[in-house]
Amino acid sequence: MINSKMQKLGASRSVIRELFEYGKMRKAQIGADKVFDFSLGNPSTPPPNRINNTLIELISNENPTALHGYTSADGDVNTRRAIAAYIRENYDEKIDESCIYMTVGAAGALTSIITALVTEGEEVICLTPYFPEYKVFIERCGGVVHSVPTKDGDFSLDIEKIANAINEKTASIIINSPNNPTGAIYTEDEISRLADLLRLKEKEYGKNIYLICDEPYRELVYSDTKVPYCTKFYDDTLIAYSYSKSLSLPGERIGYALINPRIKNFKEIKEAVMGAGRALGYVCAPSLLQALITKCVGSTSDIESYRENAKILYNALTEYGYEAVKPQGAFYLFVRALEENAAAFSEVAKKFELLLVPSDSFGIGGYVRISYCVSREQVINSLPAFKALADYYKKERNCK
Amino acid sequence: MINSKMQKLGASRSVIRELFEYGKMRKAQIGADKVFDFSLGNPSTPPPNRINNTLIELISNENPTALHGYTSADGDVNTRRAIAAYIRENYDEKIDESCIYMTVGAAGALTSIITALVTEGEEVICLTPYFPEYKVFIERCGGVVHSVPTKDGDFSLDIEKIANAINEKTASIIINSPNNPTGAIYTEDEISRLADLLRLKEKEYGKNIYLICDEPYRELVYSDTKVPYCTKFYDDTLIAYSYSKSLSLPGERIGYALINPRIKNFKEIKEAVMGAGRALGYVCAPSLLQALITKCVGSTSDIESYRENAKILYNALTEYGYEAVKPQGAFYLFVRALEENAAAFSEVAKKFELLLVPSDSFGIGGYVRISYCVSREQVINSLPAFKALADYYKKERNCK
Repeated sequence: MINSKMQKLGASRSVIRELFEYGKMRKAQIGADKVFDFSLGNPSTPPPNRINNTLIELISNENPTALHGYTSADGDVNTRRAIAAYIRENYDEKIDESCIYMTVGAAGALTSIITALVTEGEEVICLTPYFPEYKVFIERCGGVVHSVPTKDGDFSLDIEKIANAINEKTASIIINSPNNPTGAIYTEDEISRLADLLRLKEKEYGKNIYLICDEPYRELVYSDTKVPYCTKFYDDTLIAYSYSKSLSLPGERIGYALINPRIKNFKEIKEAVMGAGRALGYVCAPSLLQALITKCVGSTSDIESYRENAKILYNALTEYGYEAVKPQGAFYLFVRALEENAAAFSEVAKKFELLLVPSDSFGIGGYVRISYCVSREQVINSLPAFKALADYYKKERNCK
Repeated sequence: MINSKMQKLGASRSVIRELFEYGKMRKAQIGADKVFDFSLGNPSTPPPNRINNTLIELISNENPTALHGYTSADGDVNTRRAIAAYIRENYDEKIDESCIYMTVGAAGALTSIITALVTEGEEVICLTPYFPEYKVFIERCGGVVHSVPTKDGDFSLDIEKIANAINEKTASIIINSPNNPTGAIYTEDEISRLADLLRLKEKEYGKNIYLICDEPYRELVYSDTKVPYCTKFYDDTLIAYSYSKSLSLPGERIGYALINPRIKNFKEIKEAVMGAGRALGYVCAPSLLQALITKCVGSTSDIESYRENAKILYNALTEYGYEAVKPQGAFYLFVRALEENAAAFSEVAKKFELLLVPSDSFGIGGYVRISYCVSREQVINSLPAFKALADYYKKERNCK
């Protein structure tokens, strides 16, 4: 029997993909430079030169049978040691390689963690707006998404609302900071208060409540806000990390799951996460990419280029009358739609050749997401279109 | 709550891994050349030179942002076209790129196919002896393994036993040819009779019964037997393929799922397989490896070296009095244990520094699996140990 849930998932292209495909079609019609596609979170800055140089060095010098061979299921020990050392040095967190499980991207880490720690009927708190795939991953395990809004305006954590949402069925809460789609970063104070709450609720309900941190944008920060290392605030923390954005390697699928060494039942949880990875078909993370990370841990792409894009867009759009969240991290600008219905606004924007993702698929209405991981040229050339779009709405309003 | 099934999966190292880890320890004790490790199916011959040359060429010449960027969820269209063309030319099967879904190895293909086509309580027929991970993948979806033996002696298909096993709950049957662990290849006649049976049973039960072909060893053939291309025999066929063995790239995790263009409900099934891949966290197959396959489809590692290993081992072992299945394909020699209990026999073999995998974890007793994807040196140097092991049992028997 065809699994109808899976079929529906495969049949429904995401809104983001729809826009992207429309953009490809439109570019073919009127020229690539005339369409301003802000739909995908596909990094535009190339990986640092070190990446390709190191790949060539590895391929030229290493024993090919070992380089392309299976690694241990939890990853090559040298890769895990290099990552653990980086975390010890940069985040002052006392971990070793046993805390790291190399995965096929952050998605592989998230599905392994969720499959390990969410059982039939349990709830996972997701903070709106959130990355739509969380729901897909949670529901495949028989879990239920419990949506909780972040604070209106700055999209910071609303601890009171989270407190009200936690109940005896709560298995975990997923946070994503720097955030897709809002660009918000949760401060040390927010994380500290969240940790206090979770500890209280663990006692109240006599069960573990896991904090799952999805952190592919950890290094992409443009404000003075420090991204807290959550394991230091809360013992029952797991992190899903990816090199997709920081090293501009999204297609290569390399990341890791990190399990807090102080988590309750560390051994059992590591076994469950690895057992889940095994049952999902993840034999090991790509071996050449693991060898690459061993040598390049800590490198990043040119993040300054994103910072500049963010600044140009934020300044121009607010000048034109848009209401935008000041971008702190990741590479998304979250902008209030100029009419109530974000999908309708996105359709109007298309007429100005602007491809903006309506916020509805992230679980809230009224906004659009602008991915600014695009060329500087596109950012600058798009500004007149953003101005014209704002002017169009001003005129519309005046006519009413 | 920790998912206890996942935890058990993560806690239980496979017997194969146990032996491999014992081998590493033992080698450190007495020297690597004194331990004859035949446990893992990790190719010993390097990838063809063309692989590393093409990787360097791609990294040196291609736009890095595109080369390492996301591909479409079903894979880069050029990669899928190259594979489809290869299949058209070599197997005379009329397919195009729409039939191909690029995956993270054959395991990623199998889990996506099984998740798409096996629902709670449905049965999947697995032919003993079979690769132990099938059970893991099937049970994660709530499916049930229905074991059916192959024929004693040559491990060919037992059509009558398969016929008796099919019932209203049967969702699919998995076959693996060339076979791990027996090295058997199912002939055109066997596949043809299996197809006739499945068609009959589809009518009888008024439902689709899918044939899932796990084919990572397709090119590793040492007899005159042609490996049938099953889509040509039976419409409701899906293939899981991997480049792990044919190109000696097991750690890189690159393969594909192929859906027969003549399968009933092609569109819905492709959607379900891709939806399953999405829900399992497979965003796309590694992009650099996809670009590699586009250029190297049809290349293989030095398969002659495995053929020679097979010949040496088979001739020597049968001469020493072992009963072995004549190896036709893959890189495993399946040998009757010299006592009833294969695990006990494997323990005795350890005393002769021979690491042989007992057949129990493959679902049948009484045999050991010898992976001959090892160096020629190891094969030759191991022969006296095999002889001594046989002599030990002869003496034991004489003393009784």
